[in-house]
Amino acid sequence: MSRAALMGRDFYRVWRTIGTRWADNDAYGHVNNVVYYGWFDTAVNAWLIDAGLLDVGGGDPIGLVVDTGCRYARPLAFPQQVEVGLALDEMGSSSVRYRLGVFGHGENGAAAEGHFVHVYVDRESRRPAPLPAAWRAKLETIRSTLSP
Amino acid sequence: MSRAALMGRDFYRVWRTIGTRWADNDAYGHVNNVVYYGWFDTAVNAWLIDAGLLDVGGGDPIGLVVDTGCRYARPLAFPQQVEVGLALDEMGSSSVRYRLGVFGHGENGAAAEGHFVHVYVDRESRRPAPLPAAWRAKLETIRSTLSP
Amino acid sequence: MSRAALMGRDFYRVWRTIGTRWADNDAYGHVNNVVYYGWFDTAVNAWLIDAGLLDVGGGDPIGLVVDTGCRYARPLAFPQQVEVGLALDEMGSSSVRYRLGVFGHGENGAAAEGHFVHVYVDRESRRPAPLPAAWRAKLETIRSTLSP
Amino acid sequence: MSRAALMGRDFYRVWRTIGTRWADNDAYGHVNNVVYYGWFDTAVNAWLIDAGLLDVGGGDPIGLVVDTGCRYARPLAFPQQVEVGLALDEMGSSSVRYRLGVFGHGENGAAAEGHFVHVYVDRESRRPAPLPAAWRAKLETIRSTLSP
Repeated sequence: MSRAALMGRDFYRVWRTIGTRWADNDAYGHVNNVVYYGWFDTAVNAWLIDAGLLDVGGGDPIGLVVDTGCRYARPLAFPQQVEVGLALDEMGSSSVRYRLGVFGHGENGAAAEGHFVHVYVDRESRRPAPLPAAWRAKLETIRSTLSP
Repeated sequence: MSRAALMGRDFYRVWRTIGTRWADNDAYGHVNNVVYYGWFDTAVNAWLIDAGLLDVGGGDPIGLVVDTGCRYARPLAFPQQVEVGLALDEMGSSSVRYRLGVFGHGENGAAAEGHFVHVYVDRESRRPAPLPAAWRAKLETIRSTLSP
Repeated sequence: MSRAALMGRDFYRVWRTIGTRWADNDAYGHVNNVVYYGWFDTAVNAWLIDAGLLDVGGGDPIGLVVDTGCRYARPLAFPQQVEVGLALDEMGSSSVRYRLGVFGHGENGAAAEGHFVHVYVDRESRRPAPLPAAWRAKLETIRSTLSP
Repeated sequence: MSRAALMGRDFYRVWRTIGTRWADNDAYGHVNNVVYYGWFDTAVNAWLIDAGLLDVGGGDPIGLVVDTGCRYARPLAFPQQVEVGLALDEMGSSSVRYRLGVFGHGENGAAAEGHFVHVYVDRESRRPAPLPAAWRAKLETIRSTLSP
């Protein structure tokens, strides 16, 4: 159970600031481990929507989550703003592995680092669909310039 | 089941901007009714903490919730910023009734309006404690200047 | 801010047992006030689905929440089973007001009591739709035999 | 992004049945990926409490989460009961890696499989503390008899 160092801020390409909420804290007074995954979902999907790719209500493809993970290095707590960095790690024909870093507002060291793998599927059949060229081009813009 | 009009923005005294999250949407594609209460909790407690009154980890008193309610007028959806207005409606010897209004970013009409009643209690005994004078003074600063 | 007594178990007509979850507890070690509304949503919608009325994926009508509220009388905490009682309070042409009571497993006094108002709407237009006769008949079966 | 097969039911040693909730479903009509982590937290902590080890309110040590992950194989949806299997994968001097399998009620194939690493720390200092002998003995009782 050894632990590689978490990536710094320079690994990430786009950022989303998220305000913590009262219920994010658990019985020990810190943000619960589960909440970070809600931030990952929010950061990835908001970027896809803002980039004009994902249309949750009616577009194609949609992203289904097949693999996620997170390592936690230091606690966060409500009330606090957190900054979530996002970068593309790997792109397959119909899947994307994103890396996400969670940083306390203004802090240099990551509080947590995670991965999030989306398979993009046809909305109706829910079968994997090759990523459209427009998606591939946009996704390349957030590929990290550093090696993982 | 008639419905009084919801208060406008001028009813409220302090504001908190909250970003919606992916999981706030439910199966019908809009923010779930439950989520608004999480925003109320967040707005009230964040204001109490920022005002130097509430210390979640060790201070006295703490606030326990005894009554809440919300009326929903128009839907909200991720991704969207919402603005939550807060005002004091009534103050008793150890309890406070807050009113909260939820507005889509830049919109005039309230999407929802709620109330939130805190009883302030001694941290150890969990028995109601008279509100300290410093609390009463600060709380008066967010009393609405309009009648409910 | 006086408080009427909460209804006893005999007010309710159908029951749903819900297991608490770790994240239901908040920083004070009890189930957070917001969580009760998630139980209300669960109890109402599960009953509607089990009764063969609501089809979330494709049926008509669907229920939109326009008004909710809850009064809290005694705390609950993870890990614990809770029993949620459900009864119909009022039925309009396209809306239903439900009453819900939350009881600790095996306890007689209610921990909390709430109301939950659904307006049933056409899935596409999202405009109120008269409740179908089959819905009205089923809903009558859970009307409380006691006056509120 | 190849995917090893998920463990079957025989890998797991203890089980917890969890009812899905309305809000577990997301905009695509299935249980959101984040929710599984809430079930992991619930299954691990409930077992620790039921085993007489963890006392959330005042005992020592407490468990902090340092690493989690989940692979998702097939969707789940509200309303549905899920069965969460739990087994010990590895035990260090102050940390435990658990494996968790999520199964639809009565289904043989896992819907998802995850890991959850707790470091046990002194409540006050929040520094890792060697696992007490009573903890080690109890934890051994849920070690899987199969190799991961």
